Amino acid sequence: MIYEHGGDIYSHLEKGVKMLDFSANINPLGLPPQVSAALASAQAAATVYPDPYCRALCRSIGEFYGVSPEKVVCGNGAADLIDRIAYGLKPKTALVTAPTFSEYEKSVTRAEGMVYRHILKENQGFEIGEDILEAIREKKPQMVFLCNPNNPTGLLTEKPRLLEIARLCQDLGTTLVVDECFLDFTGKESRYSLMDSLEDFPNLIILKAFTKFFAMPGIRLGYLLTANPHFREAVWAAGQPWSVSGIAQTCGIAALKDSAYIQKTLEEIPRLRQELVKALTPLPITLYPGTANFLLFRSDYPALDKKIQEKGILIRNCGNYPGLGEGFYRVAVKSQEDNQKLSEALIQVLL
Amino acid sequence: MIYEHGGDIYSHLEKGVKMLDFSANINPLGLPPQVSAALASAQAAATVYPDPYCRALCRSIGEFYGVSPEKVVCGNGAADLIDRIAYGLKPKTALVTAPTFSEYEKSVTRAEGMVYRHILKENQGFEIGEDILEAIREKKPQMVFLCNPNNPTGLLTEKPRLLEIARLCQDLGTTLVVDECFLDFTGKESRYSLMDSLEDFPNLIILKAFTKFFAMPGIRLGYLLTANPHFREAVWAAGQPWSVSGIAQTCGIAALKDSAYIQKTLEEIPRLRQELVKALTPLPITLYPGTANFLLFRSDYPALDKKIQEKGILIRNCGNYPGLGEGFYRVAVKSQEDNQKLSEALIQVLL
Repeated sequence: MIYEHGGDIYSHLEKGVKMLDFSANINPLGLPPQVSAALASAQAAATVYPDPYCRALCRSIGEFYGVSPEKVVCGNGAADLIDRIAYGLKPKTALVTAPTFSEYEKSVTRAEGMVYRHILKENQGFEIGEDILEAIREKKPQMVFLCNPNNPTGLLTEKPRLLEIARLCQDLGTTLVVDECFLDFTGKESRYSLMDSLEDFPNLIILKAFTKFFAMPGIRLGYLLTANPHFREAVWAAGQPWSVSGIAQTCGIAALKDSAYIQKTLEEIPRLRQELVKALTPLPITLYPGTANFLLFRSDYPALDKKIQEKGILIRNCGNYPGLGEGFYRVAVKSQEDNQKLSEALIQVLL
Repeated sequence: MIYEHGGDIYSHLEKGVKMLDFSANINPLGLPPQVSAALASAQAAATVYPDPYCRALCRSIGEFYGVSPEKVVCGNGAADLIDRIAYGLKPKTALVTAPTFSEYEKSVTRAEGMVYRHILKENQGFEIGEDILEAIREKKPQMVFLCNPNNPTGLLTEKPRLLEIARLCQDLGTTLVVDECFLDFTGKESRYSLMDSLEDFPNLIILKAFTKFFAMPGIRLGYLLTANPHFREAVWAAGQPWSVSGIAQTCGIAALKDSAYIQKTLEEIPRLRQELVKALTPLPITLYPGTANFLLFRSDYPALDKKIQEKGILIRNCGNYPGLGEGFYRVAVKSQEDNQKLSEALIQVLL
């Protein structure tokens, strides 16, 4: 039972130590006020079985993005949907980039599919280059996973490239899963999202989550959008009917209504990221500032995460990301105060 | 996307109708006060990733039953664990009784296993008889699912029979899953539970849920107990690491502490069931009163559930349970007031 992600504050709590957690990328603004209120009064949602079709929530999501609610399937976090995509569509082969979020590969492997890793090159800033088209043409995978912006690099892929990939996948009969979980933070959804191309590409699935943007990873709520009714049915039928809790459905609806929180997040995160980038720039590290609410960097300092951990701060060691390796670390963009603690700790160790 | 269980109040809410729901078997005492309090103050659990190992919750469960917390794996409701058992252990063949809870068969089928249905005979009161041993010996299934008390009959299987089955399964290398989700309501756990036989049968998995007893189906929390470390690892690794929400972990710990609620439930449910049985006895139905918080009955009145539905009450049509068929209905034991509404409605239609 090996856990390989960020956010493991619990192993430290077990030893009685409360850590400042930069290893999970959660909106530092905390729970949206409307979600707080919904949670406090969620008794009614707790005592009945949840709506298996998440009808009211799908309508909220549909309205929010101006898409039909029939295109939406909700899950117990985006990770649940990645599992359901793999178990439900059973791709025999899938292509993932390296580095990227590790659950795509794990889910495909669990569903007994084979994974091709398309290595993104450090000397090209981990950009998803044209050569991915070649790789897809050559390998003809049944499924391709892209993450935009990518985790842990924070790098966005331009829409013309994405559309080329989507067209190629459509031609090959390949399912394309684009994870836009972190795109909300960039404030550039209209420029980078494939949301308006769902009808053009019936092989396309877009993944989204409430987790990071609305700071609710402990509530578990993600969703996908696709114009393909076969995909929706296969994903829904790949697991239990009650995967999305009533609490999550209630909180999700409340979150999308909290436009003040959404606006504030879109203003604050770029500012906080810029400040953190500025504070880390004098350090002897290679910084990949990205566009989301986290930064990737490389440092030659041996086991830097362990050293920072001694100061009560968790950062994500990216050594176990295929395509990265030792020396890479990811840190979340948190509040001004927390970011200052992180940069002070890094300065103490590295300068 | 077909939903086949009870508790579908949402299809009616979509039409603006609020139904009295006897089709889902939830403790009528409502949310335990300690869970209400935990839920209202669960903000902290909402904004961090949940503990993937549910360590504090496993300790609470372990203390509650006097078993080692290492024997416990938590899930997003018992239904999530049924899926994970099937996806993780991949039984090529499994035996289920008919009737029983339909998710065992669905999960095994999803994981590409074949299901044998062992028919329980109505003229034997749907008892799990000795002939199940013969069926297991003959079919040699890789997995057997039993539900004790069975859903939807409410019938308990005596421990000597269960132990015989467990021994046979152990000899054959068959995994035995015993679902004790409704056993809490009987107040007879010490007499019927296999909890104290976990060490004797490393092939045994016991399923439990917070759902029904603690009236929290909308929070999603179930768990399993097994002495088999291979099972625990396979089940944990069969899906995402964050399947159990932080809210559910917080509420589960609070629920087990609420001994006043537990005590009150054990006193109230048998009394409420007896009253409901008494009220339904004059009716021209065949009643299977069972031992849990629901009753099964048979009626020749055509489409009785539709007729009762017109009166704003949902009952569970068990026509889609293999081994039952048309004419069987299941009703929950609810509050005195609600039970009276149900019996009045049934009297109006049937007498």
